[in-house]
Amino acid sequence: MSQETTVPSPNERERRLGQNGIVQPLLTDLYQITMAYAYWKSGKTKDTSVFDLFFRKNPFQGEFTIFAGLEECLKFLEKFHFSHSDIEYLKQTLPPTIEDEFFVFLSKLTADEVTLYAMEEGSVAFPRVPLMRIEGPLIIVQLLETTFLTLVNYASLMATNAARYRMAAGDLKLLEFGLRRAQGPDGGLSASKYSYIGGFDGTSNVLAGKLFNIPVKGTHAHAYITSFTSFSELRSQTLTPKDGGEPRDLLQLAVKWRTELVPLFKVVGTEASDGELAALISFAIAFPDGFMALVDTYDVKRSGLLNFCAVALALSELGYQALGIRIDSGDLAYLSNVAREYFSKISINYNIPWFKDLMIMASNDINEETILSLNDQGHKIDCFGIGTHLVTCQRQPALGCVYKLVELNGQPRIKLSQDVGKVTMPGRKDAYRLYSESGHALIDLLQRSVEEEPEPGNKVLCRHPFEESKRAYVIPSKVEKLHKPYWNNGRICAPLPNLQIIRKRVRTSLKTLRPDIKRNLNPTPFKVAVSDRLYNFLHDLWLENAPIGELS
Amino acid sequence: MSQETTVPSPNERERRLGQNGIVQPLLTDLYQITMAYAYWKSGKTKDTSVFDLFFRKNPFQGEFTIFAGLEECLKFLEKFHFSHSDIEYLKQTLPPTIEDEFFVFLSKLTADEVTLYAMEEGSVAFPRVPLMRIEGPLIIVQLLETTFLTLVNYASLMATNAARYRMAAGDLKLLEFGLRRAQGPDGGLSASKYSYIGGFDGTSNVLAGKLFNIPVKGTHAHAYITSFTSFSELRSQTLTPKDGGEPRDLLQLAVKWRTELVPLFKVVGTEASDGELAALISFAIAFPDGFMALVDTYDVKRSGLLNFCAVALALSELGYQALGIRIDSGDLAYLSNVAREYFSKISINYNIPWFKDLMIMASNDINEETILSLNDQGHKIDCFGIGTHLVTCQRQPALGCVYKLVELNGQPRIKLSQDVGKVTMPGRKDAYRLYSESGHALIDLLQRSVEEEPEPGNKVLCRHPFEESKRAYVIPSKVEKLHKPYWNNGRICAPLPNLQIIRKRVRTSLKTLRPDIKRNLNPTPFKVAVSDRLYNFLHDLWLENAPIGELS
Repeated sequence: MSQETTVPSPNERERRLGQNGIVQPLLTDLYQITMAYAYWKSGKTKDTSVFDLFFRKNPFQGEFTIFAGLEECLKFLEKFHFSHSDIEYLKQTLPPTIEDEFFVFLSKLTADEVTLYAMEEGSVAFPRVPLMRIEGPLIIVQLLETTFLTLVNYASLMATNAARYRMAAGDLKLLEFGLRRAQGPDGGLSASKYSYIGGFDGTSNVLAGKLFNIPVKGTHAHAYITSFTSFSELRSQTLTPKDGGEPRDLLQLAVKWRTELVPLFKVVGTEASDGELAALISFAIAFPDGFMALVDTYDVKRSGLLNFCAVALALSELGYQALGIRIDSGDLAYLSNVAREYFSKISINYNIPWFKDLMIMASNDINEETILSLNDQGHKIDCFGIGTHLVTCQRQPALGCVYKLVELNGQPRIKLSQDVGKVTMPGRKDAYRLYSESGHALIDLLQRSVEEEPEPGNKVLCRHPFEESKRAYVIPSKVEKLHKPYWNNGRICAPLPNLQIIRKRVRTSLKTLRPDIKRNLNPTPFKVAVSDRLYNFLHDLWLENAPIGELS
Repeated sequence: MSQETTVPSPNERERRLGQNGIVQPLLTDLYQITMAYAYWKSGKTKDTSVFDLFFRKNPFQGEFTIFAGLEECLKFLEKFHFSHSDIEYLKQTLPPTIEDEFFVFLSKLTADEVTLYAMEEGSVAFPRVPLMRIEGPLIIVQLLETTFLTLVNYASLMATNAARYRMAAGDLKLLEFGLRRAQGPDGGLSASKYSYIGGFDGTSNVLAGKLFNIPVKGTHAHAYITSFTSFSELRSQTLTPKDGGEPRDLLQLAVKWRTELVPLFKVVGTEASDGELAALISFAIAFPDGFMALVDTYDVKRSGLLNFCAVALALSELGYQALGIRIDSGDLAYLSNVAREYFSKISINYNIPWFKDLMIMASNDINEETILSLNDQGHKIDCFGIGTHLVTCQRQPALGCVYKLVELNGQPRIKLSQDVGKVTMPGRKDAYRLYSESGHALIDLLQRSVEEEPEPGNKVLCRHPFEESKRAYVIPSKVEKLHKPYWNNGRICAPLPNLQIIRKRVRTSLKTLRPDIKRNLNPTPFKVAVSDRLYNFLHDLWLENAPIGELS
């Protein structure tokens, strides 16, 4: 029953390709392997299958989803093979009755006979429209299920979450700070990558920066501030002016400024922490051109802001321009307004124009709602650093993508359910997005693959998949075929864009949606329709397969 | 300013040790590196620090937490070094003003001068008691922060979540099915590992089974059932009896049994799906000794159960004993009762004692509350397969461990906050768990390290850390020192138990807690106290550092 192929022997393949870190064929549920054996045993090795990968509900009570994770799926296909040690492990783990020849079959298995169609990574997607369609021999396509779901679910959830934060934050800067609260190291890396795709400007995760070429950002933690308790701990306190010349005593300058600012700030000068000032001085000496300070270690108004401004003014005397502050606790709207007010006063009093525009970053337990509420209250924050709620996707920590068999050997397959929303769309299908003249997406349309493509300018009957009376004619100005082949004949067959391009696509793709579909509160659902032919096909098949109920 | 050490050159080290997958020094927040530079620049290279890693609140509205992730932290320390390419990346990423000598310093940096104390992995832990205490040169200890938090936060959260499911489920079997809903591949692996530690019996994740030696379990998916539509698709339908002899026609036997069972089940025989029966037959032929069937593809009562029982009885005629069923949708309490009733009837009618005890597994969107509510309703489920809610820790998707500097060069450090709960416990401390005569844990006590250990039989004054009037004398029957050294002089200095032992420790450790501390609804908080000396030390330091308020 072994496959007749011309692929290299597993050992050659292993040497040539290796496996892809932990993204390997064993990263799957055991039942995929037991099913593979049962398929093999019942002679289904050559059966040709079509599977759809799709979700049933948009996350976060929203009405759109960003598709991501495609590239990882393709890399997985490239290196798909069971290593010698995988086979050994399976032999020990599966029942002893499993025939040896099955393991020979498994050890030769590759994804060479698989074809994968997908939406473009970074495009908006909607319930029931497949993100990917995977075709090929039943056994191998089934074996891809769990790994694909693992690679697409969190990637898409994260990209969607990030895109929502981006919409809430408008043009403000967004940084991802979530590594320490992610599901381990790789959860953290995925969070950085897909939040960047979704519209974040950078991450604190250095490895993500190195691996994915994402801008990395960061200043210091409270520990840095508390590591200094007095001026005497400053082993160096001089700084050479930007334009050269003799080093100047930065501490002396800052202390002078601090005294001068006390009346302006209406605070008691002695309340400001000397340890904090020492820490800021030392940080400014290390990064005179990139001075950004955490100001809430002791008290934002009575210590942190005062110390920061003193050092920023001292730096300014030496020709350096500070960057700004980070506030990590307290009433962020209020404190940002206070800070901006001080910055403006200083800007005017000392005639330093850039001082009023110093960056104010906020970073304490922020989520989408916090940003929207801060917007309502009025704040002066320029940049949000977001960790926990971004990476854990707090409001909905998992996207429920599923992977369903829809056709086998040319025959449609359907999975029924008492819950109508869980009934699968049978058969091989194509999906189209129909656009209005203004460029807005009107509707997504699923058709049987044997149907003709809808054409711009021609009337198309769009039907609700389950409610008979809901139908509409649509005359699209533009028709976009949503799925392209990405994997065929054992290799990637479409160019893979880099992260920057995918990131841009998210923006472009979201622009095609009407604002009411994207809004945070009670968004309008985007319609996903089926063609008249698919409607009838689906309902005939349903009646054929569903048992008739009985009241008793 | 470079360190004088005798460690091998970075290249040698790299060759010898490699890095630990993605758990490497760059898996950190950028600010750790900018702080490292500022420390280095201000001559703090040799400063000696003490950091505490702890959390402030138990997760899931509970009153206990399981500590996990220690072994991963130690492995990280073993291989800690910046590779050549890491240094190159940092040179490009940090400001050009960074002095070259700093990179030389970084490239030689190892964890050889670090000492790490920790609680035992798998033991119960409480707010404010450090899970780990890390000591050594400020720069390196600071650089460990983010990676340690990443490794401990999710591991402990997951182990705690699993332990809570275990308590809810009593003696029932629990399997982890969450790979597809985790934060990517590694989130899935961590989920499998730490849910096993927390008390799960196995996982569906094959790679987790291979890597961590965890039992793996699984049967088949709906796709397997829908891949058959009629008997004619069965390319093989015979099975050799367990004791040998001529192969028998399993299909024929099952059809006979199905007809016979129709009146017993009070259903209409023609409503049962032939495709489903064909699928079950083929699966039984592949796994005659491990026949476990998904029964909800079409209709549990009218199709799935009937078909399963028919195949199980046919198998029984050939000497094989089926395992049971899985229900993945619908009213789980009701359907499990129906299934058990049928199994019992068959057991009696055909005198097959084991039939009544067939396993009933449930697996649809189950969380801790579902299990508790099913317990209330009364159910006949033997085993839960749990995915999404387990791995995403739905009720609280992140544990908020923090990493705080508490001592520098022998001087205590404190981080103040308007939120009392966020004030750190200053100085190097030891922690003790005091036990009653009955073996129950009474209280955890934090002391300054310079104090004498509490002794069994002697009165100990335990104080609330922040409320002056809350104090109690405790006379412990047993005193347990909670922290042991695990890393010293550049190597792991305590034996690391395997997963099975850690798993056992979770159970043993939880047994020392009174039931009211562990209950799901309104659990009693476990007390964490400070010694009289630490109380005074903390409050003196607090007053010294806090600015005096002003009403205006």
